[in-house]
Amino acid sequence: MTRFDIPAPDAAAHAAALARLDALVKPLGALGRLEELAAWLCAASGQVPPPPIARPSVVVFAGDHGVSRLSAYPREVTAAMVRVFLAGQSGVNVLAREVGAGVRVLDIAVDDDLDGVPDAVLARKIRRGSGSIDVEDALEPGEAQRAFEAGRAVADAEVDDGADLLIPGDMGIGNTTVAAALVAAALGVPAEEVVGTGTGVDEAGRARKIEVVRTAVARAGARVSDPFDLLTALGSACAAATAGFLVQGAVRGVPVLLDGVFSGAAAVVAAEIAPEAVRWWLAGHRSTEPSQAFALKALGLTPILDLGLRLGEGSGAVQAVPTLRAARAIIADMGLLADLA
Amino acid sequence: MTRFDIPAPDAAAHAAALARLDALVKPLGALGRLEELAAWLCAASGQVPPPPIARPSVVVFAGDHGVSRLSAYPREVTAAMVRVFLAGQSGVNVLAREVGAGVRVLDIAVDDDLDGVPDAVLARKIRRGSGSIDVEDALEPGEAQRAFEAGRAVADAEVDDGADLLIPGDMGIGNTTVAAALVAAALGVPAEEVVGTGTGVDEAGRARKIEVVRTAVARAGARVSDPFDLLTALGSACAAATAGFLVQGAVRGVPVLLDGVFSGAAAVVAAEIAPEAVRWWLAGHRSTEPSQAFALKALGLTPILDLGLRLGEGSGAVQAVPTLRAARAIIADMGLLADLA
Repeated sequence: MTRFDIPAPDAAAHAAALARLDALVKPLGALGRLEELAAWLCAASGQVPPPPIARPSVVVFAGDHGVSRLSAYPREVTAAMVRVFLAGQSGVNVLAREVGAGVRVLDIAVDDDLDGVPDAVLARKIRRGSGSIDVEDALEPGEAQRAFEAGRAVADAEVDDGADLLIPGDMGIGNTTVAAALVAAALGVPAEEVVGTGTGVDEAGRARKIEVVRTAVARAGARVSDPFDLLTALGSACAAATAGFLVQGAVRGVPVLLDGVFSGAAAVVAAEIAPEAVRWWLAGHRSTEPSQAFALKALGLTPILDLGLRLGEGSGAVQAVPTLRAARAIIADMGLLADLA
Repeated sequence: MTRFDIPAPDAAAHAAALARLDALVKPLGALGRLEELAAWLCAASGQVPPPPIARPSVVVFAGDHGVSRLSAYPREVTAAMVRVFLAGQSGVNVLAREVGAGVRVLDIAVDDDLDGVPDAVLARKIRRGSGSIDVEDALEPGEAQRAFEAGRAVADAEVDDGADLLIPGDMGIGNTTVAAALVAAALGVPAEEVVGTGTGVDEAGRARKIEVVRTAVARAGARVSDPFDLLTALGSACAAATAGFLVQGAVRGVPVLLDGVFSGAAAVVAAEIAPEAVRWWLAGHRSTEPSQAFALKALGLTPILDLGLRLGEGSGAVQAVPTLRAARAIIADMGLLADLA
């Protein structure tokens, strides 16, 4: 499946960036990860130095999951949190303001009618909740594709609006279990290795999650080898929408900064749909959830930050925006060794 | 020696911060390190939420070291870099601008007269270069105390000017060897475990540095048990000035964000001079130099960032400023669980 026309990052700009980094007034390689990120941004933009990151945009895909009974929180929290996002009071709202990023929340599959919420928030809704993956498919036939296309359309709208960095966020009680199931199935990792404590279940709760993931993966069987079948069997409308968002960022040649466990799982599936898309993605932070480590390793991505975060919402990725801006700044503004008196 | 009147962080504010963090609209502990830092800032300021970090200030202590022959760079680079700082083109200049931090460079012991450089940059000069610690003391009697007091006066001047976060920077060819010697002597760690490759020496160069550190520590003998004797024998004027800067930040009750290997070594010595000062310090980033890991472990500090940096100048610490601001933002601006619809 290579129907996505994904541009290649600019190899000449990358090489020119490396040469310039070596000429800056510092020991070779002394700015470590910043140098790697600076060269990456040059390749993405085709410019040395790259343009400023002026319009980072977080899109929070909100939805419920049939497995929410396994969470430390009731599923009603998902709908309530949509209102918190709209009031600008969530963690990612606050953290995004610190870096000048926009936040948009979209109801993809919230199990609530969300009366009174603006139409724009509801416009991409696929369904109310997703199926409980241990006993039934998450989605009806065709819904995974529809959600994927919705995510693509959202990325297009953000880029058309001027977004120059896309950050996927997630809100949905139960979504760490879905993420674990997707990673376990896509990468062939045993359930007990990918399941963590999510928002805060105890060991008995974790054991229940492991059993659900194991049962769900077994139920899906051979369908896990096709990414859309995988999303249908074990994913959710949010996972499919996030995957579409990640792919379309790459199609548009706009850098994507992955957040934590949920966008990591969506990225693994998105990379099966469009392998070249990975070249447009960075990993913002290390989640405490184990499935994210498997996902990032499979994608060849190393997180920028490691702050022990497990909130989701895009809250970890937005905090890496200053590091990307620092990376741009060094290659744009530092003096040259050749100019040393 | 308890002649420093160092305030205690506010335990009541810390407790109130923890209670508020648990009440924010997120799972308990889900913002990881940000929550710990938010509570720390509340304790430091005595306020919940703490005030914004509006005036972070980097002070770069520049000086030469007798062991500069071991570096990958000639000692003339130190003086040349002072001019780069004044031109605003160094790594830390560029990175500080990104976070709105000021940068002041001070000639503490540059082995150059720095003709034409503003008097304010030269006003704290202790000497030209420091001794080569493998064969002689770094400093003459009394110089360590004078440099320490100079560092204290600099911190006072910054705080009087409105600085609300102090960041020590360093510039001096050879200073990773001095840092390694101080850490080896203060903590009793073998030379081969603390010596790294600095700005980029090869294995033979690292072997020479190990031998110098081993010889220097043996030469210092029992004097390493007194912090000022240690600075005199194995340190440098910059190390002593940085130690004074760190202690005085604590005296003034202003948070200090340590940078990499050089401020880590100075902090180990400063903690011997004024143990309570450590409560006012945070570690900005993980250096690639091994002695910093020993220093931070001894101080009980965990770095905020780990970006593979080894530039010095304060360049790593300034990048952690957005994380501190993010920590303040969550406790200041997030909604409460109790308000969930």
